[in-house]
Amino acid sequence: IESPRHCHSLDELEASDIEKVIRVYIQRLNAIGKDPRFKFALLFKNHGLISGAARDVIHHTRSQLIATPVTPKRVKEELAAARSYFERRGACVFCDILRQEETEGARIVSQNKTFFAFCPFASRSPFEVWILPRRHQADFGKLDPARHLDFASILKECLAKIRTLLNDPPYNFILHTAPYCHTPKEGYWKTIEEDYHWYWQISPRLTHDAGFEWGTGIHINPTPPEDAAFLLRETAVVAAA
Amino acid sequence: IESPRHCHSLDELEASDIEKVIRVYIQRLNAIGKDPRFKFALLFKNHGLISGAARDVIHHTRSQLIATPVTPKRVKEELAAARSYFERRGACVFCDILRQEETEGARIVSQNKTFFAFCPFASRSPFEVWILPRRHQADFGKLDPARHLDFASILKECLAKIRTLLNDPPYNFILHTAPYCHTPKEGYWKTIEEDYHWYWQISPRLTHDAGFEWGTGIHINPTPPEDAAFLLRETAVVAAA
Repeated sequence: IESPRHCHSLDELEASDIEKVIRVYIQRLNAIGKDPRFKFALLFKNHGLISGAARDVIHHTRSQLIATPVTPKRVKEELAAARSYFERRGACVFCDILRQEETEGARIVSQNKTFFAFCPFASRSPFEVWILPRRHQADFGKLDPARHLDFASILKECLAKIRTLLNDPPYNFILHTAPYCHTPKEGYWKTIEEDYHWYWQISPRLTHDAGFEWGTGIHINPTPPEDAAFLLRETAVVAAA
Repeated sequence: IESPRHCHSLDELEASDIEKVIRVYIQRLNAIGKDPRFKFALLFKNHGLISGAARDVIHHTRSQLIATPVTPKRVKEELAAARSYFERRGACVFCDILRQEETEGARIVSQNKTFFAFCPFASRSPFEVWILPRRHQADFGKLDPARHLDFASILKECLAKIRTLLNDPPYNFILHTAPYCHTPKEGYWKTIEEDYHWYWQISPRLTHDAGFEWGTGIHINPTPPEDAAFLLRETAVVAAA
């Protein structure tokens, strides 16, 4: 629970309060990572009814952390793709994306000195936003405490823009971060620190996954990310602390 | 559009009318399969609002067929898994499942001489139902016209049970069938006729995919398939023709 107050949305808290939430996320992620039973933990938020949140009897902004004894399939696929890119190009794919998005500019949502927020080129859903650290880092749990407030500020800003522009839509956010590595195997994957890069994925739920998405894994998104980013950039919100 | 009449649900049609719908499904699937641009076509239905159906201004029962120039990722994964099982065991995994479900009995929903309907052991969503042909067949498009009415009857019965028991829930159905094979490659996959088996997957949308499902690909299903199958078996519907 992200605040002792009754509060509907995380972004309605002060940035300094969200900073404390970030600290708790990191403490819990790292604490669970010490338990040898777990290979991975997913930190996520379901905001609003359609996003999967329990019926609106809970008047508190909240997130969830579910640890798993396996590295889930979707996580594995992303890690394998990042490693494969690193093997071919000798660079982190997320660092390359960040540089390309910064140069192109059309999909930028917001940025500060430490973090960069944009609508990804192949957004799965309308108004999808990713927040990445500019400096390469595989594990969100290792984020420098001196950067927690910067992250809280950009997260608050992105969520407030989405809420303002889209009339408080349901959304999910998911943290993509490195899995726990208890027992590095000989000859096994040694480049994860270099090849993977944590990021925050925010997905407003304006459309529904239906038969086609279920049957194929292909997502139909009617909103070009350039349009989404333009509208989000133009949406004024109260300046983050 | 599955009927010239205003009609909300496919299962409200007579089995003999659903038989005609099945015939059209097969004609369209086979016609599109002759076009060398397409590798696959997904036949599916989105019934009710949350399932992804367009806003309820369409008072006609209907299905969709979307052809793709690639074999989609999820389809490939299922085909590869079936082939891998066939290589290891020398048998079709779906034929083996069917035999095991018939023996165990606890997850059976309905059956006739040609088809078998059950709640799969690892149902992704509550009250998920699969309909398989008893006789091995990879391609739904090759279903013997003499069997169309049997298939229409069991499809009608399963959909009517779901509608009656669960108060007309939104649902999706998806046809899982072999992709189009225009140019069999030398030394490539020659066993698909033996290793794959078409089936119909019906998924009521009683829960929502949320952050955890999106982030992991792991689905949380609160209803054991044995309970779902028991309740569906016990649900009386007007006998199919």
